[in-house]
Amino acid sequence: MTTAQLIAQIHSKKSFLCIGLDVDLNKIPKHLLDTEDPIFEFNKAIIDATHDLAVSYKPNTAFYEAYGLTGWQSLEKTIRYLNANYPEIFTIADAKRGDIGNTSTMYAKAFLDDLQFDSVTVAPYMGKDSVEPFLQFEDKHAIMLALTSNEGAFDFQTLNTDGKELYRQVLETSVTWKNSERLMYVVGATKAEYFTEVRKIVPDSFLLVPGVGAQGGSLSEVCKYGMNDNVGLLINSSRAIIYASPERDFAEKAREEASKIQQEMSVILSDR
Amino acid sequence: MTTAQLIAQIHSKKSFLCIGLDVDLNKIPKHLLDTEDPIFEFNKAIIDATHDLAVSYKPNTAFYEAYGLTGWQSLEKTIRYLNANYPEIFTIADAKRGDIGNTSTMYAKAFLDDLQFDSVTVAPYMGKDSVEPFLQFEDKHAIMLALTSNEGAFDFQTLNTDGKELYRQVLETSVTWKNSERLMYVVGATKAEYFTEVRKIVPDSFLLVPGVGAQGGSLSEVCKYGMNDNVGLLINSSRAIIYASPERDFAEKAREEASKIQQEMSVILSDR
Repeated sequence: MTTAQLIAQIHSKKSFLCIGLDVDLNKIPKHLLDTEDPIFEFNKAIIDATHDLAVSYKPNTAFYEAYGLTGWQSLEKTIRYLNANYPEIFTIADAKRGDIGNTSTMYAKAFLDDLQFDSVTVAPYMGKDSVEPFLQFEDKHAIMLALTSNEGAFDFQTLNTDGKELYRQVLETSVTWKNSERLMYVVGATKAEYFTEVRKIVPDSFLLVPGVGAQGGSLSEVCKYGMNDNVGLLINSSRAIIYASPERDFAEKAREEASKIQQEMSVILSDR
Repeated sequence: MTTAQLIAQIHSKKSFLCIGLDVDLNKIPKHLLDTEDPIFEFNKAIIDATHDLAVSYKPNTAFYEAYGLTGWQSLEKTIRYLNANYPEIFTIADAKRGDIGNTSTMYAKAFLDDLQFDSVTVAPYMGKDSVEPFLQFEDKHAIMLALTSNEGAFDFQTLNTDGKELYRQVLETSVTWKNSERLMYVVGATKAEYFTEVRKIVPDSFLLVPGVGAQGGSLSEVCKYGMNDNVGLLINSSRAIIYASPERDFAEKAREEASKIQQEMSVILSDR
């Protein structure tokens, strides 16, 4: 998917919501456990109920790998279902991969070519040759960790490296890489002021923002400091939406939660 | 596996060789492609031919994920084969994972509990709560990236952070984490002098060392600067061993290559 197509979808749906499909068998409605593929059935119901309110879905691969072969199968079925039924959706494999060049190439092939995700999240620690293989695919994207929303973000990401925080150095260096126009970045919502610094370095890039809601970040604050002329934000919500109800009405309740966020987003977009 | 068991194995085999099982279907002998599970058949033959010369095997998950479901199945069969037939071997899932706490817990469960690897490699960028979940398992280990062997290592890992390189900061911070005695570290062989710095911070830890051989590192230099009283090194070799021959004699040739390295190691161990 091109960035222009993503932007068009955002304006058409009046939403820049990404729904995280982090499916834990201990948290989904009990009646689904009797089906052949509970994880896929859960995802399918959530997607069908929310696809007009969200522009992106993001399965985190950890939740699928944790179930071994059957989990990997559920992931494959989920991305194929999305691509077949909702081709306008921007899909993200939240995998946080990164390895030496030839190995990153294998990961890139797995997620962007074979599984046909639109994008995959990547970790920056190993530098240029660990990320560039993810940027070789036309109309595909790598979403690199810059400043994450967890407590451990402050262990290294905000260390002072030659006068600037490491995450700023990571951003500045990454824009020099080949095909860097295909890069997007993970920037956590927990401190909205950081978005001002981020936007000085990558004014035009899309930012994937976790940490709104459950983790305490404010949507309006993030938009105030992080939004650009093309919106440039994908706000992720996972648990607050997909686990809105543990009963048979889970998809309906997920839609209600997604709708609340979409309405907030609609107001923000019309106020610009 | 306890560290003491690993050390005992090293002394018994006179080897601290780790063999990387990075299996690419384009590089394995053609006759294996007719078997039901070529990747597993390749691994099984390599393992059977070299298990007395190596103390560790390290499948890199990228090479399995690249083949989707069948690749994941080959990975499962490989680790189960190792655990069933060679329980003395120290197994490493080279996955370079790392995510927010509850998500890292899912990865840790997948590799250390379900698949029963002895260890998994992890990335440090997201800090403490992304790594600690991997340290919760008794007699299991997380092997954290410190200084890698690729070109991109010098993009961020050697940046000056408050007076010391980032990789030193990563090492120093990590030893304060809960169960940090279960941490090992990836330190590339490309610049042997770095081992002196690393040993000042983690004198007792095991180091997993890629980059000897194909990538240009010298075994004797690494041992000179990196070895400690308990050896404390696992030297990885992948392609030079497993692709020693593209013909039917691949396992035999792999054994010859592994044997050359093991003999060097045996001399180094007896000279100490």
